[in-house]
Amino acid sequence: MRRVLFTALICLIALLPLSAASPDEDALYGFTAATSRTERDWENKFRAIPDAKNLRDSMQRLSARPHHVGSPYDKQNAEWILSQFKSWGLDAQIEQFDVLFPTPKERVLELTEPTHFTAKLQEPPVASDPTSNQQSEQLPTYNAYSIDGDVTGRLVYVNYGLPRDYEELDRLGISVKGAIVIARYGNSWRGIKPKVAAEHGAIGCIIYSDPRDDGYFQDDVFPAGPMRNENGVQRGSVMDMPTYPGDPTTPGVGAKGDVKRLALKDITTLTKIPTLPISYGDAKPLLAALKGPVAPESFRGALPLTYHVGPGPAKVHLKVAFNWDIKPVYDIVFKIPGSESPDQWIVRGNHHDGWVNGAEDPISGQIALLEEARALGELLKQGWKPKRTIIYCAWDGEEPMLLGSTEWAEFHADELKQHAAIYINTDGNGRGFLGVEGSHSLEKFVNSVARDITDPEKKVSVWKRSQSYRLTQGRPDDRKDARTRSDLRIGALGSGSDYTAFLDYLGIASLNVSYGGEDDSGIYHSIYDDFFWYMNFSDKDFVYGQALSQTVGTMVLRFADADVLPYDFSDFADTIHKYSDELKTLLKNKQEQVRDRNQDIDDGAYNAASDPRRPTVAPPKEEVPPFLNFAPLENAQNALDHSAQRYSKAVKAFSGATLSQQSLQSINTKLLLAERKLTNPDGLPRRPWFKHMIYAPGFYTGYGAKTLPGVREGIEEKRYQEAEKEIIRAAQALQNYAAAIDSAAADLEKAVR
Amino acid sequence: MRRVLFTALICLIALLPLSAASPDEDALYGFTAATSRTERDWENKFRAIPDAKNLRDSMQRLSARPHHVGSPYDKQNAEWILSQFKSWGLDAQIEQFDVLFPTPKERVLELTEPTHFTAKLQEPPVASDPTSNQQSEQLPTYNAYSIDGDVTGRLVYVNYGLPRDYEELDRLGISVKGAIVIARYGNSWRGIKPKVAAEHGAIGCIIYSDPRDDGYFQDDVFPAGPMRNENGVQRGSVMDMPTYPGDPTTPGVGAKGDVKRLALKDITTLTKIPTLPISYGDAKPLLAALKGPVAPESFRGALPLTYHVGPGPAKVHLKVAFNWDIKPVYDIVFKIPGSESPDQWIVRGNHHDGWVNGAEDPISGQIALLEEARALGELLKQGWKPKRTIIYCAWDGEEPMLLGSTEWAEFHADELKQHAAIYINTDGNGRGFLGVEGSHSLEKFVNSVARDITDPEKKVSVWKRSQSYRLTQGRPDDRKDARTRSDLRIGALGSGSDYTAFLDYLGIASLNVSYGGEDDSGIYHSIYDDFFWYMNFSDKDFVYGQALSQTVGTMVLRFADADVLPYDFSDFADTIHKYSDELKTLLKNKQEQVRDRNQDIDDGAYNAASDPRRPTVAPPKEEVPPFLNFAPLENAQNALDHSAQRYSKAVKAFSGATLSQQSLQSINTKLLLAERKLTNPDGLPRRPWFKHMIYAPGFYTGYGAKTLPGVREGIEEKRYQEAEKEIIRAAQALQNYAAAIDSAAADLEKAVR
Repeated sequence: MRRVLFTALICLIALLPLSAASPDEDALYGFTAATSRTERDWENKFRAIPDAKNLRDSMQRLSARPHHVGSPYDKQNAEWILSQFKSWGLDAQIEQFDVLFPTPKERVLELTEPTHFTAKLQEPPVASDPTSNQQSEQLPTYNAYSIDGDVTGRLVYVNYGLPRDYEELDRLGISVKGAIVIARYGNSWRGIKPKVAAEHGAIGCIIYSDPRDDGYFQDDVFPAGPMRNENGVQRGSVMDMPTYPGDPTTPGVGAKGDVKRLALKDITTLTKIPTLPISYGDAKPLLAALKGPVAPESFRGALPLTYHVGPGPAKVHLKVAFNWDIKPVYDIVFKIPGSESPDQWIVRGNHHDGWVNGAEDPISGQIALLEEARALGELLKQGWKPKRTIIYCAWDGEEPMLLGSTEWAEFHADELKQHAAIYINTDGNGRGFLGVEGSHSLEKFVNSVARDITDPEKKVSVWKRSQSYRLTQGRPDDRKDARTRSDLRIGALGSGSDYTAFLDYLGIASLNVSYGGEDDSGIYHSIYDDFFWYMNFSDKDFVYGQALSQTVGTMVLRFADADVLPYDFSDFADTIHKYSDELKTLLKNKQEQVRDRNQDIDDGAYNAASDPRRPTVAPPKEEVPPFLNFAPLENAQNALDHSAQRYSKAVKAFSGATLSQQSLQSINTKLLLAERKLTNPDGLPRRPWFKHMIYAPGFYTGYGAKTLPGVREGIEEKRYQEAEKEIIRAAQALQNYAAAIDSAAADLEKAVR
Repeated sequence: MRRVLFTALICLIALLPLSAASPDEDALYGFTAATSRTERDWENKFRAIPDAKNLRDSMQRLSARPHHVGSPYDKQNAEWILSQFKSWGLDAQIEQFDVLFPTPKERVLELTEPTHFTAKLQEPPVASDPTSNQQSEQLPTYNAYSIDGDVTGRLVYVNYGLPRDYEELDRLGISVKGAIVIARYGNSWRGIKPKVAAEHGAIGCIIYSDPRDDGYFQDDVFPAGPMRNENGVQRGSVMDMPTYPGDPTTPGVGAKGDVKRLALKDITTLTKIPTLPISYGDAKPLLAALKGPVAPESFRGALPLTYHVGPGPAKVHLKVAFNWDIKPVYDIVFKIPGSESPDQWIVRGNHHDGWVNGAEDPISGQIALLEEARALGELLKQGWKPKRTIIYCAWDGEEPMLLGSTEWAEFHADELKQHAAIYINTDGNGRGFLGVEGSHSLEKFVNSVARDITDPEKKVSVWKRSQSYRLTQGRPDDRKDARTRSDLRIGALGSGSDYTAFLDYLGIASLNVSYGGEDDSGIYHSIYDDFFWYMNFSDKDFVYGQALSQTVGTMVLRFADADVLPYDFSDFADTIHKYSDELKTLLKNKQEQVRDRNQDIDDGAYNAASDPRRPTVAPPKEEVPPFLNFAPLENAQNALDHSAQRYSKAVKAFSGATLSQQSLQSINTKLLLAERKLTNPDGLPRRPWFKHMIYAPGFYTGYGAKTLPGVREGIEEKRYQEAEKEIIRAAQALQNYAAAIDSAAADLEKAVR
């Protein structure tokens, strides 16, 4: 669902020199020398299996027709995936949930003043693209979970529609109260745009794709190139995901059978105002009809016009109405029971539903999952017996709101919390560099796997390629890290794909994995995201599809087979130091900024600098942020440093030893449950569904992660007392986590002794 | 001539609390308490005189018809200015020089492949603009001092056409050898573009105005708004100004009478390849016909297309031929002899020639000079007797190549070197904030004047307004300076207007002064820079014209009347520390960057990161810059710090005393000659005309200053041995300067004692 952006590369991974993690050069982390050898054999066998022809055929099959939630082809795909799993000897089933999924009944957008223009709201077929003409099956262009509405008002251009954009508008003296806003896509989860617009009093929200962001400014447009043409529209959900994802009628419960559901009027996560996405072909006449101040430079896109913010004289009529239906979603799930520790689960998923044909999103990831499944079937036939239970999930309903994964995770919450060691997600794939985001207890593990995967284009390890990218094209900090740190960093997970419920609701250590960065793409959530596009502009020989299968498959095997679950806590501890330093700097900068600004306001500097022909409004004076008590966090960091070091030392001592099954079972159970300590049952302020104290999607970013979210958002949103309380809660979680690690380390020391 | 950019504001000025400079709160710096009172009276009288109606009428008169060099109206304007000066009782004369000024005979630009398109090369009249239809008198759109040429070749887009752009093209594997380049205007003196293109083997150069830079991206286009429309073309000189300005046939000599002239073939400063400027209307079909790699993001403008760099398939035919005529330029000059120190000269100038009607450039500055002259005439009638000689100059021929000012300065070089205390330049004016660049021995003086000028829009001092701008909208360093430093900084002078010969060739302390920053402008050097435009989009009530007259007039009076010439050297010394630190950081960063990059090249990181579908070329390995001996510079800084402090102390002691005329005469002569010590008769490497060791236009920037230019450009251009030698030469100049200050301070101490 989430657009795979090149910025994901900021979170590239790398490998430590193996020796840093293990006294035995040949031993994999979490394995003994002997079990390493066996493991490497199976992994090598596994990696030989994924096949480009299969990947291609599966993509062609799965993207042949539109396959959104509730469509005939969505169901056919689910049944086909089930049959594939079964054909490989895997014990697969379809698990159905019933969810609220609105589809459009009526869509009208017209400019009524100063001239008249009616938006097309249509993506026409492209002659050379054989699936683009399946109009009878395509979902119209719309934003799911917009409320119904019929509004008319003056238009205001609000850039990306984020809080800082409204601050800039305030400086220009522009209010959106009673107006319809037009925002451009990008820089946040799209549901943030109508949310913030409504918070500022707007009555409607239009979202368009500016050619600056994924159109001709970036590369040639489809079908001549990969980018969005003037007719391309980004469909997508605008639900308030950062409050809770999944079926909006059943927060926290699996939407199955006769579950109790919220009435439509009681759902808090629908937009407050009607919302509709449009192409830049439709947006251009609207923007051209705006006057008022010239938009600040950061607001300006690539249309050949002067961007003004309004309000008006453009006046707009926006009408949307939806079928508020309950629709089935079909998750296809198989389990391979563990031979030694069946109660320790390795969970792996990718969704299969698309907004239309969805070749890139999600089929390019789904086909990698299918090849992994086939390879697992092969290995089982060859006698491989994974120690732990492996669960593969092909999710449905990710696009509307992570429906299939969230409902499944909520329905199976108790057993998942007890058993799940890791959740590994993918969601679309491309050509280029390995990008990984996830729990930092897995950073070293990810680095170790990346070293064993060969880049199909350059025949070096994907780690070396990622490191090279960062060294030669990274930002200064990234370059420095890539040059000096033994592990390259992985990014933190926000939201936008199916890992959300696993990490944020259940507290299961999670990863999101993809390749990308070499091809740009402007067909996201349009009818042009199809097999024809993918074969022309992306991983057309499917070598990165193979690489993704190999990468994730290796992760699954290694986590399923390790003697000691290959978590490591030193990188996590280091990352917490980084986050904590960021928070202190954030507060300090805000203090200085507010203090200086208040002084400038008092001195009349804003008035003196203002242009009388284009007057600006001084920002309001603000309370200077108080100093906060970071001591609980610092104490927790200290405890964590200590535990992490102790654990690393214990693991090093272990790798030559052979431990009893019983010791390992007990240590691994402790390790597996450690990430759960980072959650708090009460969740984050005002959004109790989000229980992880370290990672969350930002309330005003959605896709983008906020780390130590309670504290960070408290400071950012000027709730300083709350931030101070959140320091205590986050610190408590970290103390609990440190204690769990310490306990596991003690057990390991004892067992090795 | 130089486009007044908003970035000039980075060099805004500020005022120190008066008390910091003088023990007597009422005493002006360089005056005693008694002479201060008299001076303030005359300055107040002066500032009451400049009149908005006069300014308006003069602009209308002077911009009524095209008035470029050699045109009938240029001569008529000269005669009218002369008559005005005379009518105010001023002893004015026209001084004529005869200079090479090419005008177009033939201009052809066509796209010959893959389709055919012929560029219009025309700026059509605009119905509402009454002077835009004077086509018979308008110079066609062209670049003066392009050579004749007739070339055909494949097209390559080179962004701004600067060395770093070619480095990016190298990384893409693109060569311009044998190609015609198309560069966009901006980020350098335009003559740099054909120079660098020719250095890289190009055979022709087209320069266009991208709408990103001064078109619709910035604001609405003319006549609806102030910005360049699709037909607007920027004329302008492309001579190699950073080698030497002025008449290209007479470097270093005044082009008068039977002066010996270089033959056309022996002139080194003409372009090496034919060059032509075009509108974005003409550029669009050319850029749209390019394929090859997508241009790097920093290359992309605001045209609604994907910017590719080529080469080709676009093929272009470019033909230009010129009339290589000698034309007269008419400088109008008046002198007011000094009553006490007639041998100490205050020189003030602004040019009167335009490319077409030139209302903004240069008439908006010229009319301020006229009002100053009228006011000086008034004051003389009222009995004011300036101590020193005042010389006012209305230059001709600035646009082609600073012709009138350079030839005059070269012709009068000996007496100017002996007598000139300061040169104050203006060149166009607008609405907004005071911007000053110049010699840092004048920084404190500029600050003191700015405090006495009232901003016409905000009724605070123009200093307070400038400071407010910097506090609220400056970059972090500027904000900090504005908050903590007693004087706000003035910028260093590069080139692009008539101060060049005074500062860089003669070593006379110089200033360039203007108001601006509130109105954007995209009519620079086009037929639309006219009275109609100015009355709609700039200082239409001429209050900033008044402010400019008041500001420069106050500077002239104060410098002419001071007991001790109001130089100060502490800000100069501080500025040298800043420049020296910059150079050390530059070298250190380059060392680190080259070392890291060489390592990455050796490790194959560039190859590993390169995309095989869009291959890039690793940069070449480079010598790691050696450490350089900065000690001579550090010793000179030390000497300078000491002298500056000693001088400041001596001036403080002076302000209560009354000195003999003889003492003052001798001290002031030393002070007046001090800036000359910063020159070296051999000039800069490979450009001996430029003799100042501290300030120069960059060899690859033109407009932009390079400070400590020999050293800085040595490091930037990888001539490290030369840089080390230049440290010694710059240090020697600074030592000589420090010694001169020290000597003046000693004299002052003795005189006061």
